[in-house]
Amino acid sequence: MVWQNLTEVEAALDAQTGPDAVAWAGAQARTQSLTKPPGSLGQLEVLAVWYCGWRGDARAKMHAPQIIVFAGNHGITAQGVSAFPPEVTAQMVANFNAGGAAINQLAKLQGARLDVQALDLDRPTQDFTTGPAMDDAELLTALNEGAKAVSGEADLLVVGEMGIGNTTSAAAIAHLLYGGAASDWVGRGTGVDDVGLALKAAVVRAGAARHVGAQGLRILGAVGGRELAAMAGAILQARRLRIPVLLDGFICTAAAACLEAAKPGALDHCMAAHVSAEGGHACLLERIGKTPLMALDMRLGEASGGAVAIGLLRAALACHNGMATFEEAAVSGG
Amino acid sequence: MVWQNLTEVEAALDAQTGPDAVAWAGAQARTQSLTKPPGSLGQLEVLAVWYCGWRGDARAKMHAPQIIVFAGNHGITAQGVSAFPPEVTAQMVANFNAGGAAINQLAKLQGARLDVQALDLDRPTQDFTTGPAMDDAELLTALNEGAKAVSGEADLLVVGEMGIGNTTSAAAIAHLLYGGAASDWVGRGTGVDDVGLALKAAVVRAGAARHVGAQGLRILGAVGGRELAAMAGAILQARRLRIPVLLDGFICTAAAACLEAAKPGALDHCMAAHVSAEGGHACLLERIGKTPLMALDMRLGEASGGAVAIGLLRAALACHNGMATFEEAAVSGG
Repeated sequence: MVWQNLTEVEAALDAQTGPDAVAWAGAQARTQSLTKPPGSLGQLEVLAVWYCGWRGDARAKMHAPQIIVFAGNHGITAQGVSAFPPEVTAQMVANFNAGGAAINQLAKLQGARLDVQALDLDRPTQDFTTGPAMDDAELLTALNEGAKAVSGEADLLVVGEMGIGNTTSAAAIAHLLYGGAASDWVGRGTGVDDVGLALKAAVVRAGAARHVGAQGLRILGAVGGRELAAMAGAILQARRLRIPVLLDGFICTAAAACLEAAKPGALDHCMAAHVSAEGGHACLLERIGKTPLMALDMRLGEASGGAVAIGLLRAALACHNGMATFEEAAVSGG
Repeated sequence: MVWQNLTEVEAALDAQTGPDAVAWAGAQARTQSLTKPPGSLGQLEVLAVWYCGWRGDARAKMHAPQIIVFAGNHGITAQGVSAFPPEVTAQMVANFNAGGAAINQLAKLQGARLDVQALDLDRPTQDFTTGPAMDDAELLTALNEGAKAVSGEADLLVVGEMGIGNTTSAAAIAHLLYGGAASDWVGRGTGVDDVGLALKAAVVRAGAARHVGAQGLRILGAVGGRELAAMAGAILQARRLRIPVLLDGFICTAAAACLEAAKPGALDHCMAAHVSAEGGHACLLERIGKTPLMALDMRLGEASGGAVAIGLLRAALACHNGMATFEEAAVSGG
């Protein structure tokens, strides 16, 4: 157990510190000295400086990325919000464990440790249109499961999820956090048709109405899911361990947004790996002030977008650490 | 010598064939069968199918990416169009050969062969505002140098360039090909100020006026440069060898656009790795009908954007070749 109660989780949010200012400035100075026009590596320079700042080393290297996929089931699926049946969650966990999913191939390619954590799949959350998805004890357990899954040896964290029905849960979170119309936040998920889409919006509307006034972490309990709460717990724990985080897609970002709502700045150690094809993701990223690194129309979840972005960070750090300076290479300045 | 005269180059353009339709359809069918919602890997699926189609294998793997950086010098620099002095071209070639540039780090990271080819650096092209940058013999030589640099063993090609002054040359190509205002195609390159930017636009305007009526490959001779013509030659040769190509930034795309203008469809074996921060690149990509894979605000050249995108192709192929099908994994369909 990392946290004994939700007050301790909130205290952890309040106790967060920033990046290492000296390492940040050192990394910034180094990138200016390298043999390229200033700023010409664009977002790769931003990524490298961000990573070095959070790792507290102006020439930080990345050796041990960790990817964690949390899986959970959702009572809301009984309302028919997904194109796939709920048993697919467990089937995909078996696929992860057998090495057959997209994330297995991507983790292997990126040299990342992959942990898959199934969270009480035989106990779906409650239907959030009729009551809270989780009670406080369930929420706390899921937050702790997430935090405990983070390796102290990791130097980069990517979190993702698998959970049939969880785009509906994520849309309800976004709607409670930021208002607007329910339909603004609802997308086709794994591929619902127009009727399914309208149904999802109605469910999100009903869920938000049922839990109006819920705030911060409590929103994760009200309309979230175990895998969403676990992602939030992992992101919070990564901050304590000074492990930079690459956020995955819509569901991951919705979970993360609850941390940001509870404590502005809680996601300063995170970068958005990509903007997905799922309806509200671009708006959600805008709300938390993150510019996505990629826009590849991905909408798979399971940390796949974050895993692809590990390659961008590797490229950024390879340039940052390996390039010669103007002085070393005797190249004339501009 | 690959081509004896420009007529042979034009004949090579006319003789181009398309991708393997059977492999393309096979790859498309495979991606539909994998354990993910249809289309949920977005552009990664598009990339994998494109690569397999051009390689003629529905489960093609990539083992031997080749990156070629061509370098050339430009007479137009005498007019002060660049923030860096022209001797930087040779200094950067030395930096490439010593392993100190961004492209060295990226090539190593991606497991790619890197070839650097300096093209008569001591003989800059002519100032294109007063005459053609190259005569026909010089243009032919550069096209051949590019073609000969492509390895028959390569299964992916990324071409890029180094040449102080060559964003001005690329802008002049775009202006001749597509019209508009000279200022639409001019950007800050390595970092010119407002005065420099206005000067570049004036030079591009004068160059286009001087060579109005030039078409297709002849535009490369009129306002191009040796490294631009070499990139075009390499891209054309890759088509013959059925090697898919990732286009780099503004200058690479301008060179490639001359092929497309000479023969529509000439770039069907190419994908645009990224859209750069350089002024006219986004418009240029639109004109040749390419959607960039990434938008990272890069503007370095030297094949760096293409090299980063090799990682995306690797990710795409890792998923395409390694994932289990719904049937293999016993996952229920949607």
